[in-house]
Amino acid sequence: MSKKLTSRAEDYSKWYNELVVKADLAENSAVRGCMVIKPYGYAIWEKMQAELDRMFKETGHQNAYFPLFVPKSLFEAEEKNAEGFAKECAVVTHYRLQNDPDKPGKLRVDPEAKLEEELVVRPTSEAIIWNTFKGWVQSYRDLPLLINQWANVVRWEMRTRLFLRTAEFLWQEGHTAHETKAEALAEAKLMNNVYATFVENFMAIPVVKGLKTESERFAGADDTYCIEALMQDGKALQAGTSHFLGQNFAKAFDVKFTSKEGKQDYVWATSWGVSTRLMGALIMTHSDDHGLVLPPNLAPNQVVIVPIYKTEEQFEEISKIANLIISDLRVKNITVKYDDRTTFRPGAKFAQHELQGVPLRIAIGPKDLENGTVELARRDTLTKEVVSLDLLTGIVEGLMTEIQDTLYKKAFDFRDSHTTEVNSFDEFKETLEKVGGFISAHWDGTSETEDKIKDLTKATIRCIPEDSVDEEGVCVFSGKPSKRRVLFAKAY
Amino acid sequence: MSKKLTSRAEDYSKWYNELVVKADLAENSAVRGCMVIKPYGYAIWEKMQAELDRMFKETGHQNAYFPLFVPKSLFEAEEKNAEGFAKECAVVTHYRLQNDPDKPGKLRVDPEAKLEEELVVRPTSEAIIWNTFKGWVQSYRDLPLLINQWANVVRWEMRTRLFLRTAEFLWQEGHTAHETKAEALAEAKLMNNVYATFVENFMAIPVVKGLKTESERFAGADDTYCIEALMQDGKALQAGTSHFLGQNFAKAFDVKFTSKEGKQDYVWATSWGVSTRLMGALIMTHSDDHGLVLPPNLAPNQVVIVPIYKTEEQFEEISKIANLIISDLRVKNITVKYDDRTTFRPGAKFAQHELQGVPLRIAIGPKDLENGTVELARRDTLTKEVVSLDLLTGIVEGLMTEIQDTLYKKAFDFRDSHTTEVNSFDEFKETLEKVGGFISAHWDGTSETEDKIKDLTKATIRCIPEDSVDEEGVCVFSGKPSKRRVLFAKAY
Repeated sequence: MSKKLTSRAEDYSKWYNELVVKADLAENSAVRGCMVIKPYGYAIWEKMQAELDRMFKETGHQNAYFPLFVPKSLFEAEEKNAEGFAKECAVVTHYRLQNDPDKPGKLRVDPEAKLEEELVVRPTSEAIIWNTFKGWVQSYRDLPLLINQWANVVRWEMRTRLFLRTAEFLWQEGHTAHETKAEALAEAKLMNNVYATFVENFMAIPVVKGLKTESERFAGADDTYCIEALMQDGKALQAGTSHFLGQNFAKAFDVKFTSKEGKQDYVWATSWGVSTRLMGALIMTHSDDHGLVLPPNLAPNQVVIVPIYKTEEQFEEISKIANLIISDLRVKNITVKYDDRTTFRPGAKFAQHELQGVPLRIAIGPKDLENGTVELARRDTLTKEVVSLDLLTGIVEGLMTEIQDTLYKKAFDFRDSHTTEVNSFDEFKETLEKVGGFISAHWDGTSETEDKIKDLTKATIRCIPEDSVDEEGVCVFSGKPSKRRVLFAKAY
Repeated sequence: MSKKLTSRAEDYSKWYNELVVKADLAENSAVRGCMVIKPYGYAIWEKMQAELDRMFKETGHQNAYFPLFVPKSLFEAEEKNAEGFAKECAVVTHYRLQNDPDKPGKLRVDPEAKLEEELVVRPTSEAIIWNTFKGWVQSYRDLPLLINQWANVVRWEMRTRLFLRTAEFLWQEGHTAHETKAEALAEAKLMNNVYATFVENFMAIPVVKGLKTESERFAGADDTYCIEALMQDGKALQAGTSHFLGQNFAKAFDVKFTSKEGKQDYVWATSWGVSTRLMGALIMTHSDDHGLVLPPNLAPNQVVIVPIYKTEEQFEEISKIANLIISDLRVKNITVKYDDRTTFRPGAKFAQHELQGVPLRIAIGPKDLENGTVELARRDTLTKEVVSLDLLTGIVEGLMTEIQDTLYKKAFDFRDSHTTEVNSFDEFKETLEKVGGFISAHWDGTSETEDKIKDLTKATIRCIPEDSVDEEGVCVFSGKPSKRRVLFAKAY
């Protein structure tokens, strides 16, 4: 557990992989590309879920559950969506195994148990959900339909990495239906804003809100809104997307409604999702060479107390104090764990909690008993101070906010110093190589230029930022006129 | 929505199917045997999940997540388990679709994209989890391992019914590993007790706790504990099971630990689960010919307020009162919905809330404005009374407990009057036909007799009740000696 991590400077990618495993967040499984989310990692995901779920409900959405499988005939109904996902989907073809006559003790697929129609394991649920919505929507009175689902999905990715890109992942997918285009557009933007608020306030990660270019859009969408974050290695990570689907799925699945005026029309749609990929963003934004660093808002244990003692008597006295601290902090809604395991020494416990990113560590030893103090250690700054017991609760409470803010500010400053405006392609390439990060540049608006830049530099257009201003300029690549800057970066 | 249900007396099974759909709980999907859980049904499931999750955590369990897929070679490792589930499992054989050259616009499985090893969609997760546990357990310090997972599973059932038996269902599955047999047995019993407490206190359904006979055990278990409930048609429903798995999975997946004394041994295991099947039990235990009846502890809305008005002025006055009631009740943690939709008349609202089982309905009309009263209607008893506004909060609060208790008592009395001790096979058959319900009878302990009784009567042994006492007797079927009674019933 306490073996040293590879440093970020040495090998960022190796650092990430080691950290995820050593901090007990997740591990690879026996199934190609699928991960096991371990209890500590899952506890963080549960905190994310709880907050997002609250925000979805507050904005009027209801949870429901739709089938894991999509019959092939439904899957192919919306052509662009099908095309986008057909190349990497798991397909169920049989519904039974039988004893293998050639290999005793082994099983094989029963050739007699072939499905009449193949079932695709959902890579996303628009098809099955819109086929269901058809039965739910008749009149304007049934609209808007504001549905969310927490589910697992499968995309047969060839190169996978824990949390960032896995064949199976957990996510939520919102699916909504509206009377008008304006309403659906407003919903898509609203949910992108909800994601931004969550990622900034809870995950302490600054994001850029914007619109995807046509070639980066969700398959089947008319517009894709997104939030983009910047990792410590200067690569961008798409943290969430919200799609305006126009009437594409309504037409593919024939979902019409009768308006107040008695007119029939197709409904307007959105879908939006965030996934366990957010765990990857959380890890890569804040953590350091010592291990995970967690913002207090998402830490399963915000504070850990470690007793240091030689005698049983000391242990008992320390435990009394620890229990008093715990009850005081719980009143303030701060989650505390008393690590009184006798199977590990204090040093091993310190190392584990540092690796697992517990925001605050309180150590209580014999000297503290004499002085009425404790030792308080911050994970984010790796600083320690001796604090009087009387003042502890107030200090800890204050630090919860301060650490959350500090982490956000640090990530914000990093992004700020890694966002560069460039005005020529040479500058573009040089910045990408030397600084990395976001590059703000003029672009002529064509997929052709976008593709060429990607081929030459591996950088893609992360988004057309929501807050970018009108500005006359010329495309850094083609020299053609451009009216606003877009954000390029290499990305996860 | 308000069309009358088929009555239970007329056709119980039809009543159930209609109720599930009309009360907006669930519906069949385009995928054979898979259901869509609609928002109202899902909201009830979420309340069940929240309480169970709390109880699991309180008893020291942690959530985690394991892959959806089980490679065939792992699936077949524990022979009995494999045999039990091989006949009804969905199998993924390919990872890509391509354009069908013979049918423009259609897709087909890409024959080039065949998996080297087939993947079984988990029907239960022992295999994939025990293969993972192998890496998690080295010494006694790693034990006990107390893990739970909330997930979807797939069993290719041929005859399906909403909630009761579906090809895909949602559940939780606990998987634990222990140093000793005694500890694992205690865990299996503990979790069966947790289930019983939840079902009795939250779902208001009395259950019999007991042990399954060998032929009714989980495939791969040494013992299966269960809770059995009785539905209104006199059929039993298995509401939860908790398995003592011995060392079967530890041996199949080679999971050993080093004890405090330095000895190597296989660990001892349990697994336990409840599923969306509980929704079926909930519906069938309490509901009536008017629709769903929900215990307050699980009702998404415990109280609904319906305004009755002719003028806009009345509506405003009523809304003011409604909002006061809402804030008073929320302080008491009572969830209230103000149904101020203008698109439906009060009569339609009454019908909907009755059908959906909202425990209490408050109606406020012009007369109530004059008198400072409201009309309070109980869903369980279908009784109404006019209540002074001043007394309302206290009355509603009291009714939350009273309704919960009344539902439990009603179900308990029903079960009591449908549990019969019989001492001959003629009596057995007559009781089964005329009374139904649980039949307490002596049995000789052989699977042979059990099978014959099942063939002749369709009744199975639901369990050997935990609280059954030693009593000399003779088997109702074979006349051979028996030492205790077991519980027979026809079952879902």
